Amino acid sequence: MKILVIDTSTSMATVALAVDEKVVAESCFNSDRTLSARLIPEIMRILAITGVAAADIDLFASSIGPGSFTGVRGGVATVQGLALAAGKPCVGFSSLALLAMNFPFSSHPVCSLLDARKSEVYAALFDCSAALPNPLMNDCVMSPASFFDRLCSATGKHILFAGEGAIKYRELIAERMPDRAIFAPFQLHISRAANATMLALDLFRRGESVEPSALLPVYLRASDAEINRIDLLKIGNTTI
Amino acid sequence: MKILVIDTSTSMATVALAVDEKVVAESCFNSDRTLSARLIPEIMRILAITGVAAADIDLFASSIGPGSFTGVRGGVATVQGLALAAGKPCVGFSSLALLAMNFPFSSHPVCSLLDARKSEVYAALFDCSAALPNPLMNDCVMSPASFFDRLCSATGKHILFAGEGAIKYRELIAERMPDRAIFAPFQLHISRAANATMLALDLFRRGESVEPSALLPVYLRASDAEINRIDLLKIGNTTI
Repeated sequence: MKILVIDTSTSMATVALAVDEKVVAESCFNSDRTLSARLIPEIMRILAITGVAAADIDLFASSIGPGSFTGVRGGVATVQGLALAAGKPCVGFSSLALLAMNFPFSSHPVCSLLDARKSEVYAALFDCSAALPNPLMNDCVMSPASFFDRLCSATGKHILFAGEGAIKYRELIAERMPDRAIFAPFQLHISRAANATMLALDLFRRGESVEPSALLPVYLRASDAEINRIDLLKIGNTTI
Repeated sequence: MKILVIDTSTSMATVALAVDEKVVAESCFNSDRTLSARLIPEIMRILAITGVAAADIDLFASSIGPGSFTGVRGGVATVQGLALAAGKPCVGFSSLALLAMNFPFSSHPVCSLLDARKSEVYAALFDCSAALPNPLMNDCVMSPASFFDRLCSATGKHILFAGEGAIKYRELIAERMPDRAIFAPFQLHISRAANATMLALDLFRRGESVEPSALLPVYLRASDAEINRIDLLKIGNTTI
Protein backbone atom coordinates (compact mmCIF):
# COMPACT_ATOMS: atom_id res chain seq x y z
CA MET A 1 0.00 0.00 0.00
CA LYS A 2 1.41 3.41 -1.02
CA ILE A 3 0.71 6.38 1.26
CA LEU A 4 1.61 10.02 0.50
CA VAL A 5 1.47 12.43 3.44
CA ILE A 6 1.95 16.18 3.74
CA ASP A 7 1.88 18.56 6.70
CA THR A 8 1.94 22.28 5.91
CA SER A 9 0.50 23.63 9.16
CA THR A 10 3.74 25.29 10.36
CA SER A 11 6.64 27.20 8.82
CA MET A 12 8.37 23.85 8.15
CA ALA A 13 6.49 21.83 5.56
CA THR A 14 7.01 18.08 5.35
CA VAL A 15 6.25 15.41 2.74
CA ALA A 16 6.70 11.63 3.00
CA LEU A 17 5.98 8.53 0.99
CA ALA A 18 5.60 5.05 2.47
CA VAL A 19 5.32 1.85 0.43
CA ASP A 20 4.14 -1.34 2.16
CA GLU A 21 4.93 -0.06 5.66
CA LYS A 22 8.37 1.24 4.70
CA VAL A 23 9.24 4.91 4.44
CA VAL A 24 10.92 5.36 1.05
CA ALA A 25 11.38 9.16 1.11
CA GLU A 26 10.77 12.09 3.41
CA SER A 27 11.64 15.75 3.44
CA CYS A 28 11.22 18.81 5.64
CA PHE A 29 11.73 22.33 4.28
CA ASN A 30 11.06 25.91 5.28
CA SER A 31 7.93 27.07 3.51
CA ASP A 32 7.43 30.57 4.88
CA ARG A 33 5.87 32.59 2.07
CA THR A 34 7.06 30.00 -0.47
CA LEU A 35 4.69 27.08 0.13
CA SER A 36 2.64 27.43 -3.06
CA ALA A 37 5.84 27.53 -5.12
CA ARG A 38 7.54 24.64 -3.29
CA LEU A 39 4.94 22.06 -2.31
CA ILE A 40 4.03 20.57 -5.70
CA PRO A 41 7.66 20.51 -6.93
CA GLU A 42 8.64 18.74 -3.70
CA ILE A 43 5.89 16.13 -4.12
CA MET A 44 6.99 15.66 -7.76
CA ARG A 45 10.63 15.26 -6.68
CA ILE A 46 9.73 12.62 -4.11
CA LEU A 47 7.61 10.67 -6.61
CA ALA A 48 10.45 10.90 -9.17
CA ILE A 49 13.24 9.63 -6.89
CA THR A 50 11.10 6.74 -5.68
CA GLY A 51 9.72 5.86 -9.12
CA VAL A 52 6.12 6.05 -7.90
CA ALA A 53 3.36 7.64 -10.00
CA ALA A 54 0.71 9.80 -8.30
CA ALA A 55 -1.94 7.55 -9.86
CA ASP A 56 -0.46 4.52 -8.05
CA ILE A 57 -0.84 5.98 -4.57
CA ASP A 58 -3.54 4.24 -2.51
CA LEU A 59 -4.06 6.77 0.28
CA PHE A 60 -3.41 10.50 0.59
CA ALA A 61 -3.14 12.25 3.94
CA SER A 62 -2.79 15.80 5.18
CA SER A 63 -2.82 17.55 8.52
CA ILE A 64 -6.13 19.40 8.84
CA GLY A 65 -4.85 21.86 11.44
CA PRO A 66 -4.62 23.64 13.69
CA GLY A 67 -1.91 25.92 12.35
CA SER A 68 -1.31 28.51 9.64
CA PHE A 69 -4.62 29.16 7.82
CA THR A 70 -2.95 29.47 4.43
CA GLY A 71 -0.66 26.51 5.11
CA VAL A 72 -3.42 24.14 6.22
CA ARG A 73 -5.75 25.22 3.41
CA GLY A 74 -2.96 24.74 0.84
CA GLY A 75 -2.06 21.31 2.18
CA VAL A 76 -5.65 20.07 2.32
CA ALA A 77 -6.40 21.43 -1.17
CA THR A 78 -3.31 19.74 -2.62
CA VAL A 79 -4.23 16.37 -1.12
CA GLN A 80 -7.87 16.78 -2.23
CA GLY A 81 -6.68 17.45 -5.79
CA LEU A 82 -4.29 14.51 -5.85
CA ALA A 83 -6.83 12.10 -4.34
CA LEU A 84 -9.59 13.26 -6.71
CA ALA A 85 -7.35 12.80 -9.75
CA ALA A 86 -6.13 9.39 -8.57
CA GLY A 87 -9.63 8.27 -7.50
CA LYS A 88 -8.35 7.34 -4.04
CA PRO A 89 -9.41 8.17 -0.44
CA CYS A 90 -7.93 10.72 1.99
CA VAL A 91 -7.39 10.93 5.71
CA GLY A 92 -6.83 14.01 7.84
CA PHE A 93 -4.93 14.21 11.11
CA SER A 94 -4.17 16.77 13.80
CA SER A 95 -0.96 18.75 13.36
CA LEU A 96 -0.57 18.68 17.16
CA ALA A 97 -0.86 14.88 17.31
CA LEU A 98 1.76 14.59 14.55
CA LEU A 99 4.18 16.80 16.50
CA ALA A 100 3.70 14.61 19.59
CA MET A 101 4.79 11.59 17.50
CA ASN A 102 8.37 12.86 17.81
CA PHE A 103 8.31 11.24 21.27
CA PRO A 104 7.19 7.61 20.87
CA PHE A 105 7.18 5.56 24.09
CA SER A 106 7.97 8.73 26.03
CA SER A 107 7.96 8.48 29.81
CA HIS A 108 6.46 12.02 30.03
CA PRO A 109 3.21 13.42 28.61
CA VAL A 110 3.86 15.67 25.59
CA CYS A 111 2.45 19.16 25.17
CA SER A 112 2.37 20.24 21.52
CA LEU A 113 2.31 24.01 21.13
CA LEU A 114 2.02 26.05 17.93
CA ASP A 115 2.02 29.82 17.71
CA ALA A 116 -1.54 30.89 16.81
CA ARG A 117 -0.53 34.60 16.62
CA LYS A 118 -2.81 37.22 18.27
CA SER A 119 -1.05 36.23 21.56
CA GLU A 120 -2.61 32.76 21.49
CA VAL A 121 -1.38 29.17 21.12
CA TYR A 122 -2.76 26.07 19.48
CA ALA A 123 -2.21 23.43 22.11
CA ALA A 124 -2.89 19.85 23.16
CA LEU A 125 -1.52 17.31 25.63
CA PHE A 126 -0.83 13.68 24.75
CA ASP A 127 0.07 10.46 26.51
CA CYS A 128 2.89 9.18 24.26
CA SER A 129 3.73 6.03 26.20
CA ALA A 130 2.85 3.85 23.18
CA ALA A 131 3.55 4.18 19.44
CA LEU A 132 0.55 6.43 18.79
CA PRO A 133 -0.26 9.54 20.87
CA ASN A 134 -3.38 9.43 23.03
CA PRO A 135 -5.03 12.83 23.74
CA LEU A 136 -5.17 13.91 27.40
CA MET A 137 -6.31 17.45 26.51
CA ASN A 138 -7.88 18.00 23.10
CA ASP A 139 -6.66 20.50 20.47
CA CYS A 140 -7.61 24.03 21.54
CA VAL A 141 -6.75 27.68 20.98
CA MET A 142 -6.37 30.14 23.85
CA SER A 143 -3.94 32.52 25.54
CA PRO A 144 -0.74 30.81 26.74
CA ALA A 145 -1.43 31.88 30.37
CA SER A 146 -4.92 30.31 30.35
CA PHE A 147 -3.65 27.14 28.72
CA PHE A 148 -0.77 26.72 31.19
CA ASP A 149 -3.23 27.15 34.09
CA ARG A 150 -5.34 24.31 32.66
CA LEU A 151 -2.24 22.24 32.06
CA CYS A 152 -1.02 22.62 35.66
CA SER A 153 -4.33 21.34 36.98
CA ALA A 154 -4.56 18.50 34.42
CA THR A 155 -1.40 16.67 35.48
CA GLY A 156 1.17 16.81 38.23
CA LYS A 157 3.87 15.08 36.15
CA HIS A 158 6.83 16.41 34.23
CA ILE A 159 5.69 17.62 30.81
CA LEU A 160 7.66 17.63 27.55
CA PHE A 161 7.08 20.81 25.53
CA ALA A 162 7.54 20.82 21.75
CA GLY A 163 6.74 23.03 18.78
CA GLU A 164 7.14 26.61 17.58
CA GLY A 165 4.85 27.77 20.40
CA ALA A 166 7.10 26.12 23.00
CA ILE A 167 10.06 28.08 21.60
CA LYS A 168 8.11 31.35 21.60
CA TYR A 169 6.69 30.96 25.12
CA ARG A 170 9.64 29.15 26.68
CA GLU A 171 10.22 31.77 29.38
CA LEU A 172 6.57 31.84 30.40
CA ILE A 173 6.47 28.02 30.60
CA ALA A 174 9.65 27.93 32.72
CA GLU A 175 8.16 30.59 35.02
CA ARG A 176 4.82 28.78 35.45
CA MET A 177 6.21 25.25 35.73
CA PRO A 178 9.80 25.66 36.94
CA ASP A 179 10.20 22.10 38.24
CA ARG A 180 8.06 20.27 35.73
CA ALA A 181 8.78 21.66 32.26
CA ILE A 182 11.18 19.73 29.98
CA PHE A 183 11.93 21.44 26.67
CA ALA A 184 12.39 19.26 23.63
CA PRO A 185 15.86 19.42 22.08
CA PHE A 186 15.85 21.85 19.15
CA GLN A 187 15.55 19.29 16.35
CA LEU A 188 12.28 17.94 17.77
CA HIS A 189 10.25 21.14 17.41
CA ILE A 190 9.48 20.28 13.78
CA SER A 191 7.07 17.61 12.56
CA ARG A 192 7.98 14.72 10.29
CA ALA A 193 5.53 13.50 7.64
CA ALA A 194 6.99 9.99 7.92
CA ASN A 195 5.41 9.70 11.37
CA ALA A 196 2.08 10.58 9.79
CA THR A 197 2.31 7.69 7.31
CA MET A 198 1.77 5.39 10.30
CA LEU A 199 -1.00 7.65 11.66
CA ALA A 200 -2.67 7.68 8.23
CA LEU A 201 -2.50 3.90 7.93
CA ASP A 202 -4.01 3.53 11.40
CA LEU A 203 -6.90 5.89 10.52
CA PHE A 204 -7.46 4.07 7.21
CA ARG A 205 -7.60 0.68 8.95
CA ARG A 206 -10.13 2.04 11.42
CA GLY A 207 -12.36 3.06 8.50
CA GLU A 208 -11.78 6.80 8.91
CA SER A 209 -10.77 7.57 5.34
CA VAL A 210 -13.05 9.94 3.40
CA GLU A 211 -13.80 11.18 -0.11
CA PRO A 212 -11.63 14.17 -1.12
CA SER A 213 -14.59 16.57 -0.72
CA ALA A 214 -15.00 15.56 2.94
CA LEU A 215 -11.39 16.35 3.94
CA LEU A 216 -11.94 19.62 5.80
CA PRO A 217 -9.57 21.86 7.75
CA VAL A 218 -10.14 22.32 11.50
CA TYR A 219 -9.20 25.93 12.19
CA LEU A 220 -10.39 26.10 15.86
CA ARG A 221 -11.11 29.81 15.35
CA ALA A 222 -12.39 32.07 12.58
CA SER A 223 -9.93 33.42 10.01
CA ASP A 224 -9.08 37.14 9.89
CA ALA A 225 -11.29 37.49 6.81
CA GLU A 226 -14.25 35.97 8.66
CA ILE A 227 -13.65 38.08 11.79
CA ASN A 228 -13.48 41.22 9.64
CA ARG A 229 -16.67 40.21 7.83
CA ILE A 230 -18.50 39.69 11.17
CA ASP A 231 -17.21 43.06 12.41
CA LEU A 232 -18.43 44.70 9.23
CA LEU A 233 -21.84 43.04 9.59
CA LYS A 234 -22.07 44.28 13.20
CA ILE A 235 -21.19 47.81 12.13
CA GLY A 236 -23.78 47.42 9.37
CA ASN A 237 -26.46 46.34 11.88
CA THR A 238 -25.59 49.14 14.29
CA THR A 239 -25.82 51.65 11.50
CA ILE A 240 -29.27 50.36 10.59
CA MET B 1 26.21 28.20 13.87
CA LYS B 2 25.49 26.19 10.71
CA ILE B 3 25.77 22.39 10.87
CA LEU B 4 25.50 20.02 7.89
CA VAL B 5 25.00 16.33 8.70
CA ILE B 6 24.85 13.20 6.60
CA ASP B 7 24.26 9.55 7.44
CA THR B 8 24.82 7.03 4.66
CA SER B 9 25.35 3.89 6.72
CA THR B 10 22.09 2.17 5.71
CA SER B 11 19.96 1.84 2.57
CA MET B 12 18.19 5.09 3.50
CA ALA B 13 20.55 8.05 3.29
CA THR B 14 19.73 11.24 5.19
CA VAL B 15 20.95 14.84 5.04
CA ALA B 16 20.08 17.77 7.33
CA LEU B 17 21.06 21.37 7.85
CA ALA B 18 20.63 23.26 11.13
CA VAL B 19 21.19 26.99 11.55
CA ASP B 20 21.47 28.42 15.07
CA GLU B 21 19.82 25.40 16.73
CA LYS B 22 16.97 25.29 14.23
CA VAL B 23 16.58 22.55 11.62
CA VAL B 24 16.02 24.35 8.29
CA ALA B 25 15.96 21.33 5.97
CA GLU B 26 16.15 17.56 6.15
CA SER B 27 15.69 14.69 3.77
CA CYS B 28 15.73 10.90 3.74
CA PHE B 29 15.99 8.93 0.50
CA ASN B 30 16.69 5.40 -0.65
CA SER B 31 20.30 5.21 -1.74
CA ASP B 32 20.72 1.55 -2.64
CA ARG B 33 23.21 1.41 -5.49
CA THR B 34 22.59 5.13 -6.23
CA LEU B 35 24.38 6.86 -3.34
CA SER B 36 27.30 8.25 -5.33
CA ALA B 37 24.89 9.72 -7.88
CA ARG B 38 22.44 11.11 -5.32
CA LEU B 39 24.36 12.36 -2.29
CA ILE B 40 26.09 15.45 -3.69
CA PRO B 41 22.99 16.58 -5.66
CA GLU B 42 20.92 16.20 -2.47
CA ILE B 43 23.41 18.27 -0.44
CA MET B 44 23.37 20.90 -3.23
CA ARG B 45 19.56 20.95 -3.25
CA ILE B 46 19.39 21.45 0.52
CA LEU B 47 21.95 24.28 0.39
CA ALA B 48 20.04 25.88 -2.51
CA ILE B 49 16.59 25.83 -0.88
CA THR B 50 17.97 27.23 2.37
CA GLY B 51 20.21 29.83 0.69
CA VAL B 52 23.29 28.60 2.56
CA ALA B 53 26.69 28.26 0.86
CA ALA B 54 28.93 25.27 1.66
CA ALA B 55 31.69 27.74 2.59
CA ASP B 56 29.44 29.25 5.30
CA ILE B 57 28.93 25.99 7.19
CA ASP B 58 30.71 25.91 10.54
CA LEU B 59 30.62 22.19 11.31
CA PHE B 60 30.28 19.08 9.16
CA ALA B 61 29.22 15.73 10.57
CA SER B 62 28.88 12.18 9.32
CA SER B 63 28.10 8.83 10.80
CA ILE B 64 31.33 6.81 10.92
CA GLY B 65 29.59 3.44 11.05
CA PRO B 66 28.86 0.72 11.64
CA GLY B 67 26.91 -0.05 8.47
CA SER B 68 27.41 -0.49 4.75
CA PHE B 69 31.16 -0.25 3.99
CA THR B 70 30.62 1.64 0.76
CA GLY B 71 27.96 3.87 2.31
CA VAL B 72 29.99 4.83 5.37
CA ARG B 73 33.15 5.38 3.31
CA GLY B 74 31.24 7.55 0.83
CA GLY B 75 29.63 9.61 3.58
CA VAL B 76 32.86 10.16 5.49
CA ALA B 77 34.75 11.06 2.28
CA THR B 78 32.07 13.57 1.28
CA VAL B 79 32.16 15.30 4.66
CA GLN B 80 35.99 15.26 4.65
CA GLY B 81 35.99 16.93 1.23
CA LEU B 82 33.43 19.57 2.21
CA ALA B 83 35.18 20.36 5.51
CA LEU B 84 38.60 20.54 3.87
CA ALA B 85 37.36 22.94 1.18
CA ALA B 86 35.49 25.09 3.73
CA GLY B 87 38.37 24.99 6.23
CA LYS B 88 36.04 23.83 9.00
CA PRO B 89 36.08 20.95 11.52
CA CYS B 90 34.20 17.64 11.41
CA VAL B 91 32.62 15.33 13.92
CA GLY B 92 31.76 11.67 13.55
CA PHE B 93 29.02 9.76 15.33
CA SER B 94 27.75 6.19 15.63
CA SER B 95 25.02 5.19 13.20
CA LEU B 96 23.51 3.05 15.98
CA ALA B 97 23.36 5.98 18.42
CA LEU B 98 21.66 8.10 15.72
CA LEU B 99 19.01 5.41 15.19
CA ALA B 100 18.33 5.32 18.94
CA MET B 101 17.61 9.07 18.81
CA ASN B 102 14.24 8.22 17.24
CA PHE B 103 13.12 7.48 20.81
CA PRO B 104 13.95 10.52 22.98
CA PHE B 105 12.80 10.27 26.61
CA SER B 106 11.80 6.65 25.99
CA SER B 107 10.69 4.63 28.97
CA HIS B 108 12.37 1.53 27.50
CA PRO B 109 16.02 0.90 26.55
CA VAL B 110 16.51 0.95 22.77
CA CYS B 111 18.32 -1.76 20.82
CA SER B 112 19.58 -0.47 17.45
CA LEU B 113 20.12 -3.28 14.96
CA LEU B 114 21.55 -3.05 11.45
CA ASP B 115 22.01 -5.95 9.07
CA ALA B 116 25.76 -6.62 8.81
CA ARG B 117 25.22 -9.39 6.20
CA LYS B 118 27.15 -12.72 6.57
CA SER B 119 24.42 -13.69 9.11
CA GLU B 120 25.56 -11.00 11.55
CA VAL B 121 24.15 -7.78 13.01
CA TYR B 122 25.65 -4.46 14.01
CA ALA B 123 24.08 -3.83 17.39
CA ALA B 124 24.07 -1.64 20.48
CA LEU B 125 21.79 -0.94 23.44
CA PHE B 126 21.01 2.56 24.70
CA ASP B 127 19.33 4.21 27.66
CA CYS B 128 17.17 6.85 25.89
CA SER B 129 15.50 8.32 28.96
CA ALA B 130 17.02 11.76 28.23
CA ALA B 131 17.49 13.77 25.02
CA LEU B 132 20.75 12.02 24.07
CA PRO B 133 21.21 8.23 24.05
CA ASN B 134 23.53 6.75 26.66
CA PRO B 135 25.23 3.44 25.69
CA LEU B 136 24.39 0.41 27.84
CA MET B 137 26.07 -2.02 25.41
CA ASN B 138 28.64 -0.63 22.98
CA ASP B 139 28.51 -0.97 19.18
CA CYS B 140 29.44 -4.52 18.20
CA VAL B 141 29.13 -7.03 15.36
CA MET B 142 28.17 -10.66 15.97
CA SER B 143 25.61 -13.32 15.13
CA PRO B 144 22.04 -12.34 16.09
CA ALA B 145 21.74 -15.40 18.37
CA SER B 146 24.91 -14.49 20.33
CA PHE B 147 23.86 -10.86 20.60
CA PHE B 148 20.35 -11.70 21.83
CA ASP B 149 21.87 -13.99 24.48
CA ARG B 150 24.03 -11.10 25.73
CA LEU B 151 21.06 -8.75 25.57
CA CYS B 152 18.89 -11.05 27.68
CA SER B 153 21.51 -11.15 30.41
CA ALA B 154 22.19 -7.38 30.23
CA THR B 155 18.69 -6.22 31.17
CA GLY B 156 15.45 -7.67 32.42
CA LYS B 157 13.33 -4.82 31.06
CA HIS B 158 11.22 -4.45 27.95
CA ILE B 159 13.45 -3.51 25.01
CA LEU B 160 12.51 -1.41 21.97
CA PHE B 161 13.97 -2.82 18.75
CA ALA B 162 14.67 -0.56 15.76
CA GLY B 163 16.52 -0.67 12.46
CA GLU B 164 16.86 -2.79 9.33
CA GLY B 165 18.31 -5.59 11.47
CA ALA B 166 15.25 -5.59 13.71
CA ILE B 167 13.04 -6.03 10.64
CA LYS B 168 15.21 -8.86 9.28
CA TYR B 169 15.49 -10.77 12.59
CA ARG B 170 12.04 -9.96 13.96
CA GLU B 171 10.95 -13.58 14.26
CA LEU B 172 14.12 -14.60 16.06
CA ILE B 173 13.79 -11.66 18.49
CA ALA B 174 10.14 -12.52 19.20
CA GLU B 175 11.11 -16.14 19.79
CA ARG B 176 13.99 -15.29 22.18
CA MET B 177 12.23 -12.48 24.08
CA PRO B 178 8.52 -13.17 23.66
CA ASP B 179 7.39 -11.04 26.62
CA ARG B 180 9.99 -8.29 26.46
CA ALA B 181 10.46 -7.28 22.82
CA ILE B 182 8.67 -4.17 21.53
CA PHE B 183 9.10 -3.52 17.81
CA ALA B 184 9.37 0.08 16.68
CA PRO B 185 6.54 1.20 14.38
CA PHE B 186 7.63 0.97 10.74
CA GLN B 187 8.51 4.64 10.24
CA LEU B 188 11.06 4.56 13.07
CA HIS B 189 13.40 2.01 11.52
CA ILE B 190 15.12 4.75 9.51
CA SER B 191 17.52 7.37 10.89
CA ARG B 192 17.05 11.14 10.58
CA ALA B 193 20.05 13.41 10.05
CA ALA B 194 18.20 16.21 11.91
CA ASN B 195 18.66 14.24 15.13
CA ALA B 196 22.38 14.14 14.41
CA THR B 197 22.60 17.94 14.18
CA MET B 198 22.02 17.98 17.95
CA LEU B 199 24.45 15.08 18.46
CA ALA B 200 27.08 16.92 16.35
CA LEU B 201 26.61 20.15 18.31
CA ASP B 202 27.00 18.26 21.58
CA LEU B 203 30.24 16.59 20.38
CA PHE B 204 31.57 19.95 19.11
CA ARG B 205 30.87 21.62 22.47
CA ARG B 206 32.67 18.82 24.28
CA GLY B 207 35.75 19.51 22.14
CA GLU B 208 35.43 16.32 20.08
CA SER B 209 35.61 17.89 16.62
CA VAL B 210 38.56 16.90 14.43
CA GLU B 211 40.46 17.90 11.28
CA PRO B 212 39.00 16.30 8.12
CA SER B 213 41.92 13.86 7.88
CA ALA B 214 41.12 12.49 11.36
CA LEU B 215 37.48 11.62 10.59
CA LEU B 216 37.76 7.85 10.22
CA PRO B 217 35.17 5.12 9.68
CA VAL B 218 34.64 2.50 12.38
CA TYR B 219 33.91 -0.71 10.52
CA LEU B 220 33.99 -3.12 13.51
CA ARG B 221 35.18 -5.86 11.16
CA ALA B 222 37.40 -6.18 8.10
CA SER B 223 35.94 -5.49 4.65
CA ASP B 224 35.50 -8.30 2.11
CA ALA B 225 38.53 -7.02 0.22
CA GLU B 226 40.67 -7.21 3.38
CA ILE B 227 39.33 -10.67 4.31
CA ASN B 228 40.09 -11.92 0.78
CA ARG B 229 43.58 -10.40 0.95
CA ILE B 230 44.27 -12.15 4.27
CA ASP B 231 42.96 -15.43 2.84
CA LEU B 232 45.21 -15.03 -0.20
CA LEU B 233 48.23 -14.33 2.02
CA LYS B 234 47.45 -17.45 4.07
CA ILE B 235 47.20 -19.55 0.90
CA GLY B 236 50.46 -17.96 -0.26
CA ASN B 237 52.16 -18.91 3.01
CA THR B 238 50.83 -22.45 2.91
CA THR B 239 52.10 -22.88 -0.64
CA ILE B 240 55.55 -21.71 0.43
